[in-house]
Amino acid sequence: MAEDPAIAPTGAAAGAATNAITECVGGILAPAGFSAAGAAAGIKRSGRLDVCVIDAGRPVPAAAVFTRNTMAAPPVAWSREAVASGHLRAWVVNAGNANACTGEQGATDTRRMAEETAAALGCEPSDVAVASTGVIGVPLPMDVVSAGITAATDALGSTRAHAADAAAAIMTTDTFAKEAACTVHAGDIRYTVGGIAKGSGMIMPDMATMLAFLTTDAPLDAEACQAALASAADATFNRITVDGDTSTNDTCALMASGAAPGAPAAITTTDPAYPAVAAAIRHVCATLARMVVRDGEGATTLVSVTVRGASSEQDAEDAARTIAVSPLFKTAIFGRDANWGRVAMALGNSRATIEPALVDIVFAGIVTCARGEAVPFDEDAATEALAASEVDVVVDLNLGEAEATVLTCDLTYEYVRINGEYRT
Amino acid sequence: MAEDPAIAPTGAAAGAATNAITECVGGILAPAGFSAAGAAAGIKRSGRLDVCVIDAGRPVPAAAVFTRNTMAAPPVAWSREAVASGHLRAWVVNAGNANACTGEQGATDTRRMAEETAAALGCEPSDVAVASTGVIGVPLPMDVVSAGITAATDALGSTRAHAADAAAAIMTTDTFAKEAACTVHAGDIRYTVGGIAKGSGMIMPDMATMLAFLTTDAPLDAEACQAALASAADATFNRITVDGDTSTNDTCALMASGAAPGAPAAITTTDPAYPAVAAAIRHVCATLARMVVRDGEGATTLVSVTVRGASSEQDAEDAARTIAVSPLFKTAIFGRDANWGRVAMALGNSRATIEPALVDIVFAGIVTCARGEAVPFDEDAATEALAASEVDVVVDLNLGEAEATVLTCDLTYEYVRINGEYRT
Repeated sequence: MAEDPAIAPTGAAAGAATNAITECVGGILAPAGFSAAGAAAGIKRSGRLDVCVIDAGRPVPAAAVFTRNTMAAPPVAWSREAVASGHLRAWVVNAGNANACTGEQGATDTRRMAEETAAALGCEPSDVAVASTGVIGVPLPMDVVSAGITAATDALGSTRAHAADAAAAIMTTDTFAKEAACTVHAGDIRYTVGGIAKGSGMIMPDMATMLAFLTTDAPLDAEACQAALASAADATFNRITVDGDTSTNDTCALMASGAAPGAPAAITTTDPAYPAVAAAIRHVCATLARMVVRDGEGATTLVSVTVRGASSEQDAEDAARTIAVSPLFKTAIFGRDANWGRVAMALGNSRATIEPALVDIVFAGIVTCARGEAVPFDEDAATEALAASEVDVVVDLNLGEAEATVLTCDLTYEYVRINGEYRT
Repeated sequence: MAEDPAIAPTGAAAGAATNAITECVGGILAPAGFSAAGAAAGIKRSGRLDVCVIDAGRPVPAAAVFTRNTMAAPPVAWSREAVASGHLRAWVVNAGNANACTGEQGATDTRRMAEETAAALGCEPSDVAVASTGVIGVPLPMDVVSAGITAATDALGSTRAHAADAAAAIMTTDTFAKEAACTVHAGDIRYTVGGIAKGSGMIMPDMATMLAFLTTDAPLDAEACQAALASAADATFNRITVDGDTSTNDTCALMASGAAPGAPAAITTTDPAYPAVAAAIRHVCATLARMVVRDGEGATTLVSVTVRGASSEQDAEDAARTIAVSPLFKTAIFGRDANWGRVAMALGNSRATIEPALVDIVFAGIVTCARGEAVPFDEDAATEALAASEVDVVVDLNLGEAEATVLTCDLTYEYVRINGEYRT
């Protein structure tokens, strides 16, 4: 199975998928039944694409997971309500302005984005979900946004170029567009899942926002959409970290067209085809999540932190996350320093059950700590191993069977530069 | 009252102290009844002082609070047990090696440090507590440490120079020694509290460790020692953060000699003199805590984050701490950027109850957000205000009466440089 080994080696959805997942091109438009477009409205000063519309052509089963930040932006509140029906026709997304901390005006502007998109598509505003990313505390330039919605809905199409434009239009300071797609067979039917994401970037600069939109031509019902997406997000997007901050606008969404040739009327979570489709959704999420970390602000190294031998998966995840967010650990990675003491320190700060005298730490393939005690190692070899663009750190608690992996990146001068620059 | 306004404006101990606190010189030897010394054993490559002994001359009431890190180092385990009796005669401290992740050998070495100090002082090993700070995962060079213990116990004395040596001997990469002392009157009796601390530094480099040792000539009983110290630490050392990481060796300790002229036999927590002494202890802790943040790795700016109008003190503290540890917030401070959106984002990530439409944010004296909405402000004036060496950020949740302040520093290139350097 082609499942990304670093981020999703465990879990029921992956394990249950006995059919091979095959990666393919086409991004968010790889699955049948969707059209998309990107337009350059002028919200971004650069003149780049900044309004994206993804259209399923009719209300289809849909799901979304959102930021848990209590200062969530107006588009999050709108979309939470829109997707509660279990169906959406379209997403409209703008980059360059997060429409956050904008009060009543922000809510009005979000509603207008949905209304104008709905009018152009010929549907109800409640069928349109909205996402925004960019600078916060600045009202949306609605004239510009409206023109962008008109341009994007006029330009809708289903080619690879349309998919690429959609991926580009949600970027902020991402250094590359993030697209992924794959197919999976369930019985005789081939289902396709596609997606786009944007990672941690900022506009002027501002906060990081993670957006991801997925599509599938599998006829998942609304409940299956939510189950597959929530499970996939937990195992992928929720196991990456760039700086531990969670934005006001994070959104991860899925629409299911059911347009796969030969597809049945619906796939529920108890349907035999469900695990394969869910695994494909997780695969696309894992691929996009990995791209987001790879493109983390200032990152030079992708770091995979695995904690195994934990008493519970929650312990494993909590320990891996606590290590992955530690600034001392992340600067050591930047310094190509196998400073396993910082792993031990961060591990000890997690809520996981730990028996210090049982802990093993393997840093970039080098055993640095066995049963809680230092193991002499060749520092030159370690420095060389840490020069790789991807570094694995594995902690074995030797207590149980549970395991979790969290992806992160190093903490660099460039991170400080990007985020320390004046907004002006 | 001279209580540090930024870190300890609230709380029962401060409020109950009606007697003026007066700062004085002399650090940890300002109170009567103690001697101390620092010796250069050679644990630090620099040849600087690296072994410290603080001696009360006889077992006296004592208390300590320790790191909650589950990978706590052997000296923490030893000292936790030693202080459980409520009495200690002395502390022996080494800098340059944290004796952490050193397994059985580490426990043996810690016991030897206590035994050798006890033999030199003529007391039981269980009367001697031990603290270590520095590189981890490396066995203590016990020959060198033993010689340092001999030298330090031989050199014990009660002059200001002895106090300064003790302060210097616990430093790692601290850029200045941290000493504080004050007096307070309770009735006709003048009590003195003194202390030394070391902050976030590293040796080769390695993890940060916070150590603080306090003395008083007030005859606090063991229970009063613990109550006053725990309360003071909660309001001061537990409300500072440099990078959110907690070391394996953090220790904060107090010994009470009762040697103040005219002092009664004992002061309990219900004694009328207790609040004044507790306030003085808190004052010394606040002064030292502020020094630790000021000397944070790579810090250019001391940042005070106050959350008021919270529903509970726990909410206020949690919200202030979540803002104070946010890398995006800390890099904005370094960039002299009144990027209040990052305050709003971090606030929303805390567990505090928040009503977004009620939130006010005042950034370096400039109202940037009122009732959840952006307030236009002069960016040039903000940049100028942020050029100060101390910056206050105040968030009013407008929900209740509770308030808390957490001190932090900015996240700078220098932090990345210090912590990204090779240990070798």
